[in-house]
Amino acid sequence: MYNRLDKGRKVLSEQPFSVLVGTELSRMDEGQVVMELPLRRDHMQQHGFAHGGVVSYLADNALTYAGGTVLGDVLTLEMKINYTRPAIGDRLIARAEVISSGRTQAVCQCRVFAVNAGTEKLCAVAQGTIVAIPKPD
Amino acid sequence: MYNRLDKGRKVLSEQPFSVLVGTELSRMDEGQVVMELPLRRDHMQQHGFAHGGVVSYLADNALTYAGGTVLGDVLTLEMKINYTRPAIGDRLIARAEVISSGRTQAVCQCRVFAVNAGTEKLCAVAQGTIVAIPKPD
Amino acid sequence: MYNRLDKGRKVLSEQPFSVLVGTELSRMDEGQVVMELPLRRDHMQQHGFAHGGVVSYLADNALTYAGGTVLGDVLTLEMKINYTRPAIGDRLIARAEVISSGRTQAVCQCRVFAVNAGTEKLCAVAQGTIVAIPKPD
Amino acid sequence: MYNRLDKGRKVLSEQPFSVLVGTELSRMDEGQVVMELPLRRDHMQQHGFAHGGVVSYLADNALTYAGGTVLGDVLTLEMKINYTRPAIGDRLIARAEVISSGRTQAVCQCRVFAVNAGTEKLCAVAQGTIVAIPKPD
Repeated sequence: MYNRLDKGRKVLSEQPFSVLVGTELSRMDEGQVVMELPLRRDHMQQHGFAHGGVVSYLADNALTYAGGTVLGDVLTLEMKINYTRPAIGDRLIARAEVISSGRTQAVCQCRVFAVNAGTEKLCAVAQGTIVAIPKPD
Repeated sequence: MYNRLDKGRKVLSEQPFSVLVGTELSRMDEGQVVMELPLRRDHMQQHGFAHGGVVSYLADNALTYAGGTVLGDVLTLEMKINYTRPAIGDRLIARAEVISSGRTQAVCQCRVFAVNAGTEKLCAVAQGTIVAIPKPD
Repeated sequence: MYNRLDKGRKVLSEQPFSVLVGTELSRMDEGQVVMELPLRRDHMQQHGFAHGGVVSYLADNALTYAGGTVLGDVLTLEMKINYTRPAIGDRLIARAEVISSGRTQAVCQCRVFAVNAGTEKLCAVAQGTIVAIPKPD
Repeated sequence: MYNRLDKGRKVLSEQPFSVLVGTELSRMDEGQVVMELPLRRDHMQQHGFAHGGVVSYLADNALTYAGGTVLGDVLTLEMKINYTRPAIGDRLIARAEVISSGRTQAVCQCRVFAVNAGTEKLCAVAQGTIVAIPKPD
């Protein structure tokens, strides 16, 4: 009875770390997802920007969800992230998409934006490999 | 009056996100750092493992601190992480080291281990570029 | 007197390795370049596909050229490549673009396609950091 | 009748691109390989250093061979490379090792050194995922 977005939100609510951080799933279509994170003081590093680890967590999670829209149960095998600008603002938005996919793997990319007073600025770009959960190795 | 480890711990205590997550700095020598994270339910994803975002946060932070031991005030320009095994256990340990450094940049590597009942298992390997905080760009 | 494309082709002709490999520069606009490589037997690995090293060379070079369109004299600091499909065909086409740039650095992405009997298929996706050539470090 | 090193050299001799470039396999043990490349003018870019694409080709190939020592027939799924210094000298040496491996995948790391007048200097560090050649996807 769940649609894709509801199911994605349910999984997110079952990730204690995502609940701790406060992640929201805004959109989940085949090959594309949008995740958002309302920023609070808890997310900062010592200079008052969102911690790089918060940005990479959000990128990682968005990549995984994007891959999941085409592969089902998945995990992130690896990812790479470039930080392009300090993440300053009231909200992070991660937009991830599937670039290429096969039966068991997908390559996905993600851009993370910081929203400050209504203006979005790119703060990170990520690329990674998502794999369907394999049989025990 | 602070030694390097005390100073590193002070910076860590000024990162609200690291306080939220519960990160500990165990060792900080020139070119090498060790960070640890006692795992709790808050760090999990839906399958009961530490969330990949927790692992990548810890790797990112350890890489940054390693670079900081040779460069001073730094930030992570980019990083790449391979997850090698689900992070199951009571504690994560990230060991990072400087592989190469110049006046303004360092390439660092990090291995993250999950400690389960006293046994360490490698769960991620990361590599990244740390840069001295630049003049406004 | 040179326009951007002519200048780019001149630099390419001064790279003995690019001459050895046979790389062609098709397009060079601000923030975007296209490089092509007519495939011959010399580019293959043991299974008859273009060697991964040929694909990564082309991606690396296209990323560098893209960064150069906004930064001038540049070099590649780092890059990451995902191979999505064996590179089979008569020609590789690398399309690279600048995603984000500052005064001294740019983050670029590239997609490499294999053209087989007129059909393009994505065979690799790359992302990297291009830097203006720095003062001696 | 072939030992591992002979078999590795045979495969290398069947890669036309490796023959074109002039790659040599010096060592091939379980989990560890060494590849070398005597540098000639053909390998250079416009500043007289080995082209980044030569360095990344060598790193990629060494990673693949390292993974092959534990997995059999393999290909490189993805890799990331940081260039740490211009590759100046008469020879490149790539030392690659398996960091972690399962039934179908291995994470490997590689360091590439330029040998100049008998002195080795690190010029690149790479990390990648090697996979056993899968069934058609």
